[in-house]
Amino acid sequence: MLPMRVWELGEFGLIDRIAGIVGQLPGSDVLVGIGDDAAAWLVGDSIQLGTADVLIEDVHFSLDRATWRELGWKALAISISDIAAMGGVPRYAMVCLGLPLETEVSDVEELYRGMLDIGALFNVAIVGGNVSKAPSVVIDVSTIGSASGGVLRRSAALPGDQIAVTGYLGQSAAGLKVLNSELELDAKASEFFRTAHFRPCPRVREGTILAQHGVKAAIDLSDGLVSDLSQVCRASGTSARIFVDRLPVHPLVASTFPDSYSRLALTGGEDYELLFTASSEVIERLRGFMPAVISVIGEICEGDCGQVTVLDGAGNVVELGEKGWEHFRSQT
Amino acid sequence: MLPMRVWELGEFGLIDRIAGIVGQLPGSDVLVGIGDDAAAWLVGDSIQLGTADVLIEDVHFSLDRATWRELGWKALAISISDIAAMGGVPRYAMVCLGLPLETEVSDVEELYRGMLDIGALFNVAIVGGNVSKAPSVVIDVSTIGSASGGVLRRSAALPGDQIAVTGYLGQSAAGLKVLNSELELDAKASEFFRTAHFRPCPRVREGTILAQHGVKAAIDLSDGLVSDLSQVCRASGTSARIFVDRLPVHPLVASTFPDSYSRLALTGGEDYELLFTASSEVIERLRGFMPAVISVIGEICEGDCGQVTVLDGAGNVVELGEKGWEHFRSQT
Repeated sequence: MLPMRVWELGEFGLIDRIAGIVGQLPGSDVLVGIGDDAAAWLVGDSIQLGTADVLIEDVHFSLDRATWRELGWKALAISISDIAAMGGVPRYAMVCLGLPLETEVSDVEELYRGMLDIGALFNVAIVGGNVSKAPSVVIDVSTIGSASGGVLRRSAALPGDQIAVTGYLGQSAAGLKVLNSELELDAKASEFFRTAHFRPCPRVREGTILAQHGVKAAIDLSDGLVSDLSQVCRASGTSARIFVDRLPVHPLVASTFPDSYSRLALTGGEDYELLFTASSEVIERLRGFMPAVISVIGEICEGDCGQVTVLDGAGNVVELGEKGWEHFRSQT
Repeated sequence: MLPMRVWELGEFGLIDRIAGIVGQLPGSDVLVGIGDDAAAWLVGDSIQLGTADVLIEDVHFSLDRATWRELGWKALAISISDIAAMGGVPRYAMVCLGLPLETEVSDVEELYRGMLDIGALFNVAIVGGNVSKAPSVVIDVSTIGSASGGVLRRSAALPGDQIAVTGYLGQSAAGLKVLNSELELDAKASEFFRTAHFRPCPRVREGTILAQHGVKAAIDLSDGLVSDLSQVCRASGTSARIFVDRLPVHPLVASTFPDSYSRLALTGGEDYELLFTASSEVIERLRGFMPAVISVIGEICEGDCGQVTVLDGAGNVVELGEKGWEHFRSQT
C-alpha cells in the first residue's frame, strides 16, 4: 500500500487526524481545543484565548505585490481576527520571523511598523518572538486574548438559526483581482481595493457584542464564505442554505466586477468579517449595538452535516466548483 | 548608501532594532517583553508566560537524521525550556506546521506523537495551531505557561553573583558529532548520544525551585554556554568569567571526545540546561532541593557589558573563535 500524502487527505482531513491524536491528552482547564478559530482555557475565573498562524512567502503572500508594512498589518490582523471570532479581546502577540540572509533590515523594520499600526488600533502589544535564517520569508504570529462574555464556537449553530455576516463580502478577493489585472481605476477606487486586500480590519468590537448578547456560534471569514460556513456546519452537525441575492456586496465591487461579484462573495476569502448564527430575535436585538452593518444571508438546517446549499433569486441551486481556500488540496 | 542586510546586522542586532520599534507600544500589564526567554504578563494576580519559536528544515533540523517523532519531541522541548528558564510551568501549546504537499500523513502523525510524548511528561496540552502548504517543513510552537514564584530574568544578574548550571554541558553537540561521524559506539553509548541531541529534557522543576528560592537571573542554554551567558551579561550590564575546569561534562562525552569536550561544553548549544546566577548562600541553600546536579562555573563581574572571559586551570584566557549559535551572522 502506498503511503498517504497530505495533499490526498487535504487540510481539513489532516486537522481531523491531528485532533484525534492530540485529543488523547488531558487538559482539565481547556475549554476549547483544536478545531476552532482559537483555543480557550481558564486562568482563575478568566477565559484566555490563544491562536497561532504561519504565513509563508509565495504560499500566503507575495512580496511583489504587498509592501512589508502591509504584510505586517495583515499578519497581525489575521491573528486578531481569530480572537474576534471567539468573542474575545486581543492583548499580546508573539512574532517569529524566518528571513533570507539578504533581507534588508529596513524592510524588517517596516514589517514591524505595520504590526504596530494595527496593534495600536486594537491595543495589542508585541511581547516576544524570535528571528531566524530561512530560505524564504516565514511570518508566524501568535496572539493571546481574553473573553469576558461567553465564547463563540463553531460548533454551536442550531437548526433554525439565521446566518448573518458583518460588513461586505468578496472585497479582499476583488482587491487581489484588481492587483493582478490591468484595470484602470481612479485613485480612490485603487486605494479602496488595496486596503480591502492588504489592510483588513478585524471585527473585535462586533465579536464582543455578539458574545454579550447571547450569540453562541461564529467563525471569521478567512477561507471564503461557503468554505467557512461549511466548517461551522461540520462542527455543529448541521447543514445550511444561503441566498445569493442576500449577500452584502460593496457597490464598488459590484460595479467593478458585474459578472463575478457573487462568486467573489461566495468563495473569495480573506475578508475577515464575522459569520454568526442565532435566532431572528437575537439578531434583531443586536442590530442597534453593532458598529458594522449586519446582513442575514440564510439559515441553518438539519441533517447533511457540513453541506452548504447556495440558492439564487429563483430558488435554483447554484453549483460551485472550488468552494474556497483549502491548503494542500485545492492548490495542487 | 547600500541598504543594510540582516546578515550584516546579525541576530542580536536585529532583535535590538525590533525591540526599539516595538517598545513604543503601551502594554501596562506586560511584565517582560521582547529580549528574554519568554514574555510575561498579568491575568488578575496570575503571571502568565508566553514563548514562540520557529524551526525550519535544513536550518534547525534535518530529516535525514531525526525521526519525525524525535523532531516533535524536540520542537516542544525547546519551547517548554523557554518557560522553564523564566521559572514557570508550561500549560498549553499551539503548533503551526508548514508541509510540502508530498509529506506522508503518517509522518505528521509521528511528529504529533513526539510532541505528546513530552507533553504528557510535562502536562502540556496541545490546544491549537494550523497546517499549511510550504516549500519545506516549518514547525512553529508557541507555549503558554504560568509562574507562581517570581519570574527569572536575563537582566537580573549582579556583580559578585556566582554562575551555576544544571546538569551536563556539551552533550547535545557531542550527540550531533556522533551522528555525523563514523564512530563505532556500543548500543548504550549510541542511545545516550542520540537522546542527548534529539530528546532534551527541559528543566521545568528546577526552574520553579530557583524562582521559589530567591534566584532572580536565569537563561536556558540553547545557543551555547558562552553565547547564552553573554546574553545574560548584556541584559544585566555586566561581564562574566568562567573556568573551563569547572564545566560539568558527562564522562561519556569526555571519553568519546577527549580533545574537544571542553569546546563542546563552551559553545555546543542545545543542551537546554538552565544557567542561573545568585549569591553563594542562595546556591548552597538550593542544592538540597534540586533534582539536577548543580555546578558553579564562574562569577558575574562589573563592567565590560556582555563580555565573557574563559579561563583555563592555570588562569590563562582561552580564546574562542565562534562562540555559539547565532542566526544570520555565524552561519554565513
